[in-house]
Formats: sequence, structure tokens, C-alpha cells
Amino acid sequence: MKTKVFVTLKPSVFDPQGKTIVDALRSMGYTAVQDVRQGKYFELDVEAGSTDEARSMVAEVAEKLLANPVIESYRVEVDDERSQESGVRRQETA
Amino acid sequence: MKTKVFVTLKPSVFDPQGKTIVDALRSMGYTAVQDVRQGKYFELDVEAGSTDEARSMVAEVAEKLLANPVIESYRVEVDDERSQESGVRRQETA
Repeated sequence: MKTKVFVTLKPSVFDPQGKTIVDALRSMGYTAVQDVRQGKYFELDVEAGSTDEARSMVAEVAEKLLANPVIESYRVEVDDERSQESGVRRQETA
Repeated sequence: MKTKVFVTLKPSVFDPQGKTIVDALRSMGYTAVQDVRQGKYFELDVEAGSTDEARSMVAEVAEKLLANPVIESYRVEVDDERSQESGVRRQETA
């Protein structure tokens, strides 16, 4: 089962990589880009009996290994192969 | 206008970071995770008159700065504030 994890810095945390990208874009003439935040993106292929099982396992993996819950938040999406539309579930952390 | 860029290694490119994560998860007991691919995720806040304008600008930025088109592919999503559902547009690269 295909799952996706998006890890982003919490809004209160300064993002120096994003700031560097904004500066680089400005020097390249892309002044319309106001702000950039960089995050991490993971595609996990997991064996699970149901989308709920996959979602809870991947959330655990994100919490323990992929994200640093002190400064980062994560979102989990599970692609249910039976139904592309309804199978995408989201889970937000604070 | 909020836009998102997902940068992933092309399927033919070996992903050592993903392999390391799979190994770490295995040693932690998560044997159900078959495969992991790591990518980058960017949130760009851009000033644009239309979603089409934003999309084409962000695709250009992704091509020139955020992704390495030789080994990576990217996907651009534009969140149209007027309509959350229909405003999400996708653009795939080979």
C-alpha cells in the first residue's frame, strides 16, 4: 500500500534553507516569490490489511523516525488502490 | 497564492537515504515497510494574477533551482483560494 509522509517545520520555527532559496530566486529575478518553506517528503510502500492499519503504522514511523516532533509537524496520506478519490486520508499534527 | 512542489528521485535512480530508513525501520521491528523513497517538499507563497500564471512560474523555479531534472522529477500543485477542491492542479514531469 502506497503511503506518503510530508514533514514540515512548525510555523514558529525559522527556516534558513527556505530563506536562502528566496534570496537565490530574488537574485534570479523571481521577485514574485514571497516566501519558501522547505520540508521533507517520503513515499513508503507498506504491507497492511487496511488503510487504517497502514495510516496508524506510518504515523508511528513518522513520529519515531521521520520527523522531529519538537520542531516539525507531519501529515500522512494513504492511497487506497480500490478508490483513488476516497482513499486519500489526512492526519495533521499540531 | 500558496503553491507546493514535490521533488522525487526518478524511479531508476538509487535512493541510499530511503534504503537507510528501511534498514533502520527493520531494526526497530517495522518489517511491514517494504520500500521508502525520500524526496523534498517546498511550499512557495507567490504573487500571481491567476493559478495558471502561478503554476507556470513555480514550474520554472522548480526546473531551474529546486530540482535536478537529470535525476529528479517534480510535481507542482497550486492551491486556488477561491475553490479548495477544484483549484488543486497537478503537473507531472517525466
